[in-house]
Amino acid sequence: MEIATSLQQIPSSYIREILAAASDKNVISLAGGLPDEKTFPIDLMKATLEGLSDMPEVFQYGATAGYGPLLTFLNTYFELPESHMAMVCTGSQQGLDLIARAYVNPGDKVVMEAPSYLGAMQVFGLVQADMVTVPQTEFGPDLTALETCFAEQSPKMFYAVPDFHNPTGVCWSLETRQQVAALCIKYKVALIEDAPYRELRFAGDALPLVSDFCPQNSIVLRSFSKIASPGLRIGVVTGKRSYIEPMVKVKQGADLHSSVPMQALLLGLLEHKDFDQHIDTIRSLYKSRYETLFSELQQKLPEGCELNAVDGGMFVWVTLPECDTFALAKSLLSNGVAVVPSPVFYPKPESADAALRLNFTNATNEELAEAVTRLAAGLREQLSAVTNQEVPVFV
Amino acid sequence: MEIATSLQQIPSSYIREILAAASDKNVISLAGGLPDEKTFPIDLMKATLEGLSDMPEVFQYGATAGYGPLLTFLNTYFELPESHMAMVCTGSQQGLDLIARAYVNPGDKVVMEAPSYLGAMQVFGLVQADMVTVPQTEFGPDLTALETCFAEQSPKMFYAVPDFHNPTGVCWSLETRQQVAALCIKYKVALIEDAPYRELRFAGDALPLVSDFCPQNSIVLRSFSKIASPGLRIGVVTGKRSYIEPMVKVKQGADLHSSVPMQALLLGLLEHKDFDQHIDTIRSLYKSRYETLFSELQQKLPEGCELNAVDGGMFVWVTLPECDTFALAKSLLSNGVAVVPSPVFYPKPESADAALRLNFTNATNEELAEAVTRLAAGLREQLSAVTNQEVPVFV
Repeated sequence: MEIATSLQQIPSSYIREILAAASDKNVISLAGGLPDEKTFPIDLMKATLEGLSDMPEVFQYGATAGYGPLLTFLNTYFELPESHMAMVCTGSQQGLDLIARAYVNPGDKVVMEAPSYLGAMQVFGLVQADMVTVPQTEFGPDLTALETCFAEQSPKMFYAVPDFHNPTGVCWSLETRQQVAALCIKYKVALIEDAPYRELRFAGDALPLVSDFCPQNSIVLRSFSKIASPGLRIGVVTGKRSYIEPMVKVKQGADLHSSVPMQALLLGLLEHKDFDQHIDTIRSLYKSRYETLFSELQQKLPEGCELNAVDGGMFVWVTLPECDTFALAKSLLSNGVAVVPSPVFYPKPESADAALRLNFTNATNEELAEAVTRLAAGLREQLSAVTNQEVPVFV
Repeated sequence: MEIATSLQQIPSSYIREILAAASDKNVISLAGGLPDEKTFPIDLMKATLEGLSDMPEVFQYGATAGYGPLLTFLNTYFELPESHMAMVCTGSQQGLDLIARAYVNPGDKVVMEAPSYLGAMQVFGLVQADMVTVPQTEFGPDLTALETCFAEQSPKMFYAVPDFHNPTGVCWSLETRQQVAALCIKYKVALIEDAPYRELRFAGDALPLVSDFCPQNSIVLRSFSKIASPGLRIGVVTGKRSYIEPMVKVKQGADLHSSVPMQALLLGLLEHKDFDQHIDTIRSLYKSRYETLFSELQQKLPEGCELNAVDGGMFVWVTLPECDTFALAKSLLSNGVAVVPSPVFYPKPESADAALRLNFTNATNEELAEAVTRLAAGLREQLSAVTNQEVPVFV
């Protein structure tokens, strides 16, 4: 049976492959985007887990938009105006998939920053969107390029990760947020604001959502995978009713609804008096790991490599002198450290600048220090090889 | 933001609407396809539920194809050959959606019996398949019509529910199963065998899956919603690896993976020594309800209505003299009984014969008897009105 045309164009996930290789005990993985298993608030979920057997209603079919008591809670939790609604998804990844399926026709233009989140490229690829990229600066998207793009290309939506971007860790400035919102309104472009790392801020003050400045023009994706547990597969999409209702219709066909016991479990967790403190604990842990990774990198990276400080999230982005980053990642893997090379984060991989994404949430401080030692050694070897052999510039 | 073309063609689910209306306490609903909440094997799940808090690994991201220990169990449980694999989905509804997304291009022909499962029509509608129907007899699809269709139209797949079809309750004969498999092989048509009601047999002997006769040409969808709990949203798809792997790729984008705690919970249930006995209990209960519904219908239905006996499943199909079944369903609802009119089960509703789908699994024997009294009274009223007024034939 021949696979659908839309699927033929989707590359298989390089990250999945490298994650599989990275499961070797001798490899320290900075490749994934996994939260630390030890941070999962299982103690705070225990009572609800045990109480589920007294809630027969959660074992029956549920409403497509979500478990009623959770939706009621979320309306308050996210301070949704009367015009807006929340829909529960099987992870925020499904929310993104439903947005693409509800709104994007083949050839429709979807704007994103380059580099961008791999899972978003997969989803928009499946609906055969025309993915248009704008460059990213340290404050967010290049606003001149974004306005030109909006004006000349009339895109349908702008997909963005304004808080601690995956893969670069960039957090948009307040001014950028206001200006992007204004551009979305001016050019009638829907903003798809993906906020999975928003709560993982360990420095500076929280900024408003970009969507706060254009609530009628935006859909927000929320994840509980980084602050609670990814295994549950419960995410939330919010936006004005007329934006969310078509997605509910697609979700009916996609999976009828998400697991109700898992929705009840999440509700119990969000209502737990110690949940905020749990988030503070995660933030402190990740802050310490980030600081270790960053200072080790500063000390050990060879010349020509650059890194930007981040205020939260899960990733550090290291830009490199021009080289074949795939070959580099492969050689680093055999050196005992797994990383992700930059081209996988670009809709057009050949246009990628050489860089690596490093994760700091799923390895201990000791492992991070050792990983950087291996990384620096591998980098020196690879970069000097490039220089000495005067090989042509790799993509 | 304008919705996608593919979604514009999907009617909103009439069943969802009627289910909402049927939640009125004064209405007895025979409209849904819900298992009885009291049958959920919560006692058999309790120990696993309480043990989840000692399994931190189920709270982490999981593999897209499913939770390893569950997949290992399913290989044995379903006696899969080496060439085949199982993939866990967010309900078997997602399995169907992934099949459509992985294989169907707009305009590709998908064959199904008429009437057919509403959720399948939604899914194939979303990928803009050309849905081609063949008539159904009491033994399964009309084989002559099916062969003509396969020969003349070269469809990509044949979607079928051979065990206790939704909505008609028809169970294919052994001969039909063998012949359909032979036709699928001969004409290179993939069989999509949807088996959610297979375990709900309360009379006669189990027959082989149709796929047992064409294992290299088929994908099987399995549900645990009718024998365990629909709230969990865990279903399974099986087939040869080359059929399943493209679906795993789509699932990566769709939701990364299904809830891991729910997969662990299902595994605990399937391994429980009392699970088989639990299924026997459900079968006995539904047998008794079916017998009540059937005998009440036999006694009370006005002339011109016909019903076929079933050996399992959740539904009885009542064919009626020509009438406007939507108007009838609406008037029955105001008489205190909810049913589903036949046109919603046809890709071309205007071609539907007048009939009603009645569910017997979610009402008590007493409620079923009272529901039939109301149904019969409403039917008499409506049918005599049609005759007396000599109105034109309704669709």
